[in-house]
Amino acid sequence: MEAIEEGMADYAVLPIENSSAGIVSQNYDLLFEFENYIVDEVVLQIKHALLGVPGANLQDIEVIYSHPQALMQSEKFLQDHRNIRAISVENTAVAAKKVADEGDIHQAAIASSLNAKLYGLDILEPVVNYNDVNSTRFIIVTNQKVFRKDAGKISICFELPHTSGSLYRMLAHFIYNDLNMDKIESRPIPGRNWEYRFFIDFEGNLNDSAVKNALRGIRNEAMNLKILGNY
Amino acid sequence: MEAIEEGMADYAVLPIENSSAGIVSQNYDLLFEFENYIVDEVVLQIKHALLGVPGANLQDIEVIYSHPQALMQSEKFLQDHRNIRAISVENTAVAAKKVADEGDIHQAAIASSLNAKLYGLDILEPVVNYNDVNSTRFIIVTNQKVFRKDAGKISICFELPHTSGSLYRMLAHFIYNDLNMDKIESRPIPGRNWEYRFFIDFEGNLNDSAVKNALRGIRNEAMNLKILGNY
Repeated sequence: MEAIEEGMADYAVLPIENSSAGIVSQNYDLLFEFENYIVDEVVLQIKHALLGVPGANLQDIEVIYSHPQALMQSEKFLQDHRNIRAISVENTAVAAKKVADEGDIHQAAIASSLNAKLYGLDILEPVVNYNDVNSTRFIIVTNQKVFRKDAGKISICFELPHTSGSLYRMLAHFIYNDLNMDKIESRPIPGRNWEYRFFIDFEGNLNDSAVKNALRGIRNEAMNLKILGNY
Repeated sequence: MEAIEEGMADYAVLPIENSSAGIVSQNYDLLFEFENYIVDEVVLQIKHALLGVPGANLQDIEVIYSHPQALMQSEKFLQDHRNIRAISVENTAVAAKKVADEGDIHQAAIASSLNAKLYGLDILEPVVNYNDVNSTRFIIVTNQKVFRKDAGKISICFELPHTSGSLYRMLAHFIYNDLNMDKIESRPIPGRNWEYRFFIDFEGNLNDSAVKNALRGIRNEAMNLKILGNY
């Protein structure tokens, strides 16, 4: 996000939500922190495999490295193998590379099977995520406000004080303007107790008058309204 | 939750939300899975310390053990000490005990300073959570439907199909019945892509007619409506 904001890269592709594990909360927080905009989204089916050094077997494995989200998506497998310690690393490719570099038959990585080829590892288990329909939604982000004319989805965020009814009043702007909300998420505002930043996806285009009405109402009552994208 | 449901224990106290790290998503999922009810809630201020074996110094530390939530709440400290590897364990007390048992000056635990006394450890850093106002909200759960007459907060959950406008229609029941929502959270439904279970806290008592109206409307349109508590 820093590289995009500073113009050192044109686009970033960020995982924002997984159909088994839920939202990637850190990436929601980054959407607020940086002046970047969502220009599109894409959904990919995700399969995690268990990879070990050539010759290793599942019963040899004592430690598994992976990204925390991949570990969450493989929770049932890890619960069935409680003797194996799970350790979080930066991403699944780092996990696979670490296992390949260290060459220890007691170590394995949870990563896509593509990494087996890349790093010369064996596939010990082809699928360890517990949900057959495991998919991840990725957003594509850039530092320009690119609001497409045919766009049908708007993502915004805003902050609310911790007063009774503030969430009620904010959502009423969507209801009274007949705007369909697809998703609502809240994240704590750092340093403030029980005050939230809300992330809402709703159907519409920034040129629609109902959308303009709702955003005007929200801007008057909420703090730090930010249009994250219309795509 | 299993012990409570089966009557082997009377009450459970579960962390449900932290003011820095956000919701404890697994405990939301458990509220749906088990036939238990929220009867009260309590908020505690949380301070995490870094604990090591007697004689250890911060610059000796190579590995830190703690619960994933405590690691998230100490994210800035961990980022400032990137050479230290963070490893998740079952809870913060297990982390402290492990450090005490293994007696290695390169290991530390993030846990409350109380654990220093309990396990004979030194406090290497008194506060490693990055948010001064770090608080956790706990819910108290039992297997009886205890709906207090003077209760002013209701927690419910329900599931929605992935159709345009389903969230909109559901929230309209709160708006049109003038019910203040305090909190709304969504969690993926296992095995179904992009379908969500919503958890809503709102102000009211199950005997209020506006509450009865709203719940009747929700029950007609949503799936698996569950009253989690009125407290």
